[in-house]
Amino acid sequence: MHILLSNDDGYLAEGLIALANALGGHAEISVVAPDRNRSAASNSLTLEMPLRAYTMDNGFIKVDGTPTDCVHLAITGLLENEPDMVFAGINHGSNLGDDVLYSGTVAAATEGRFLGLPAVAISLAGANPIHFETAAHVAVTLLQQLINHPLPQDTILNVNVPDVAIKDLKGYQATRLGQRHKSEPVIKSEDPRGRVIYWVGPPGAEQDAGPGTDFYAINAGFVSVTPLQLDLTWYERINDLKTWLPKEHDL
Amino acid sequence: MHILLSNDDGYLAEGLIALANALGGHAEISVVAPDRNRSAASNSLTLEMPLRAYTMDNGFIKVDGTPTDCVHLAITGLLENEPDMVFAGINHGSNLGDDVLYSGTVAAATEGRFLGLPAVAISLAGANPIHFETAAHVAVTLLQQLINHPLPQDTILNVNVPDVAIKDLKGYQATRLGQRHKSEPVIKSEDPRGRVIYWVGPPGAEQDAGPGTDFYAINAGFVSVTPLQLDLTWYERINDLKTWLPKEHDL
Amino acid sequence: MHILLSNDDGYLAEGLIALANALGGHAEISVVAPDRNRSAASNSLTLEMPLRAYTMDNGFIKVDGTPTDCVHLAITGLLENEPDMVFAGINHGSNLGDDVLYSGTVAAATEGRFLGLPAVAISLAGANPIHFETAAHVAVTLLQQLINHPLPQDTILNVNVPDVAIKDLKGYQATRLGQRHKSEPVIKSEDPRGRVIYWVGPPGAEQDAGPGTDFYAINAGFVSVTPLQLDLTWYERINDLKTWLPKEHDL
Amino acid sequence: MHILLSNDDGYLAEGLIALANALGGHAEISVVAPDRNRSAASNSLTLEMPLRAYTMDNGFIKVDGTPTDCVHLAITGLLENEPDMVFAGINHGSNLGDDVLYSGTVAAATEGRFLGLPAVAISLAGANPIHFETAAHVAVTLLQQLINHPLPQDTILNVNVPDVAIKDLKGYQATRLGQRHKSEPVIKSEDPRGRVIYWVGPPGAEQDAGPGTDFYAINAGFVSVTPLQLDLTWYERINDLKTWLPKEHDL
Repeated sequence: MHILLSNDDGYLAEGLIALANALGGHAEISVVAPDRNRSAASNSLTLEMPLRAYTMDNGFIKVDGTPTDCVHLAITGLLENEPDMVFAGINHGSNLGDDVLYSGTVAAATEGRFLGLPAVAISLAGANPIHFETAAHVAVTLLQQLINHPLPQDTILNVNVPDVAIKDLKGYQATRLGQRHKSEPVIKSEDPRGRVIYWVGPPGAEQDAGPGTDFYAINAGFVSVTPLQLDLTWYERINDLKTWLPKEHDL
Repeated sequence: MHILLSNDDGYLAEGLIALANALGGHAEISVVAPDRNRSAASNSLTLEMPLRAYTMDNGFIKVDGTPTDCVHLAITGLLENEPDMVFAGINHGSNLGDDVLYSGTVAAATEGRFLGLPAVAISLAGANPIHFETAAHVAVTLLQQLINHPLPQDTILNVNVPDVAIKDLKGYQATRLGQRHKSEPVIKSEDPRGRVIYWVGPPGAEQDAGPGTDFYAINAGFVSVTPLQLDLTWYERINDLKTWLPKEHDL
Repeated sequence: MHILLSNDDGYLAEGLIALANALGGHAEISVVAPDRNRSAASNSLTLEMPLRAYTMDNGFIKVDGTPTDCVHLAITGLLENEPDMVFAGINHGSNLGDDVLYSGTVAAATEGRFLGLPAVAISLAGANPIHFETAAHVAVTLLQQLINHPLPQDTILNVNVPDVAIKDLKGYQATRLGQRHKSEPVIKSEDPRGRVIYWVGPPGAEQDAGPGTDFYAINAGFVSVTPLQLDLTWYERINDLKTWLPKEHDL
Repeated sequence: MHILLSNDDGYLAEGLIALANALGGHAEISVVAPDRNRSAASNSLTLEMPLRAYTMDNGFIKVDGTPTDCVHLAITGLLENEPDMVFAGINHGSNLGDDVLYSGTVAAATEGRFLGLPAVAISLAGANPIHFETAAHVAVTLLQQLINHPLPQDTILNVNVPDVAIKDLKGYQATRLGQRHKSEPVIKSEDPRGRVIYWVGPPGAEQDAGPGTDFYAINAGFVSVTPLQLDLTWYERINDLKTWLPKEHDL
């Protein structure tokens, strides 16, 4: 078993190191991660510029690109042996509901979709989370389960872990993504030279966070595990479209 | 009707200008677009740095950020009046199958999901496409249909247009996303100083491109319209998960 | 006569266009300029990444690099015919005293030091200067003089022009660089997420700005022309060093 | 004695760590360095964006900016106590002749010009230098001499050290900057998508490298120490200018 690890907080992040230490006891691991914080990079891919990869003293490979670049490089030629699966994280902070659209951690997992086993994105909830040992424990548990209960390769598991000690975990819940309200307004400000600048505001509050959602599980102290699909097609709407898309003679 | 336009090729792109000219005849438009090419930016959002917005002579607003930044700013405070919908494009090149995960154009549309009408991402197929007038015509046609056939606000329409003259369009097809094979291998090279660099390789060939897919429609000369959803939850898999996720006593 | 034009405000800047229009009437010109604002780029050179050059509709070539990159590319192979001299500007704002160490405009001129005629950096003083026609007039006047009074090729002329109408110019002064006090303190602030950020503060006030300096000339309404050298050796100090540098037996 | 250390190779560079270890035994040190490689950044200063500073486990502060940004921040407010002098380096590779115009290491020293003691830029010659202990030894030796032989605060010492063991150093030479030929041509290439890219070529060969120059000293196995001035005025040329600058009636 050969696992590729990546993240979006950068190769020096405590969460990545905790994950590497934990999984390294159960599989061969390769770490390929961004050389700096790339949170909210989503599935951004670097096409216009070349990338550089450096192997650090601890064996981690840092790349001057996005999380997606890291995993893309790793599985399309950088590593001598193709890994069997990707673990991305442990993210510093949760990735719940709409967050998955923007998350570099989830994107890193997504990019592992062509490998043999499901990819896992794992995040530790909280503004300044500290219980990385809990998330690392969860990662190992899930790895063992995935080996015994193989899922289709094109599944991504989005895992969020409450920031509590292992003994205080309430258990696991299989969840769906909740939803946030629209983001808070942009914050208009001025730089010291008197010119207008804008900061992206905080994410919106929870809108759809009832039982069954990832928000609900985390708030109740459970590990939330959401299966994600990568086919964005909204199949139920295809027939609607057919009713009003122009017929040839309307062109 | 107030439409926000954006893209990922930058505010100077021919496709954006063609779209603005076409839709400007049917609605109030605001254009907020990246100050340079941001292809493959996906839903990347700039959280660590402030953004700057400049209004150009032609009324377009350029922002030193990603497509998602542009739309996010526009609808959360930059524009005085919130728009009713977003049109993103006309992208120079298609966005088919897995491409939508990486596309900045689709991401710009996604970011308009909280507005009153569906968002539309529109792309002109081909390596160096030229028939922007065809895609602009399609945009106007779809706008008129959407006004008369309102879809739920959280729908995204991913539209691809063949690079042919209007009269040579075969018609419209409501499609699902196809799928590509895994990308081509990373291209290993050297910079002039003898150090190793890597270029992301070309996207994979079409793997699932049969009838009903967006690939198929475009190859046959039809406009492809795929409804996208933004809830990535794979509902069918939730029950599977429940069968093997650890019970509390396993923790 | 073939003149290369560049700047640090970017290829769309009013000052560059004014300069191109003015010099274009007296010589063949080529414009190679950054694709965006690169003020304070100094002599920064892009070694780790490749550069891209695009020819715009108006014939200007924009490069995704620094002012130094632009001139470097232009004179080492991008242009078919090597230019005879470089004009950089018209900078939006003055470059006086210590400013020349940081200025991308002066750096662009510096990079032209291997050409046949002196390079000229030209700046229009003022916070939001408007009299670009005055600076353009000065540029043409200096060009004509330089043709008749050839200076050694390795001279850079740093020209600052008061922001007044041509008829209100008091004349020209050959000046030395003045000096600023140390910069104002860094401005400590917070981003909207509560994390500390720092902004570089404004430049220091004038410290050495008496008669003979560039500050003095501009304040009095004169065009300031300062000859710059690129050999930074402080010759007078070499002998001092010899008195105390360790002798071999001290190593 | 409080010394500020910086460099342009980034806070993880072996040369910086060697310098910190060596000087740390003789003075209080503060290290403020770029978070990644910023070679050839020259005196580039970040005015448009805020900067962030993180204190690492070893006490080094990394900043997401240029070498000039690092020293600027450090001496205008980031550090509680203003340092007495700046040491920049140990650069991985030499900074000889024209190189000083582009060097981020020399720029970091330059930015320390307002402090009480001369600033020192120190570089270890060679393509992949290894004898950092030699350059560290030279740094300590020079520090001790500078304390006993104070130079004016606005002097910068540009020090280059041969990549040999300490016992193989031939001694010290007070030198002037030599000069390079014009750079090698730009290298035109293509990215994997068939679009033209350009790489800045290698620096030119030595043109003025005779006895007395920094090139000569290094080639002969000596430590080269060049005093640099920051007043770029070419005083000898001011009178020349006066002979041909337009008189008022010529305007």
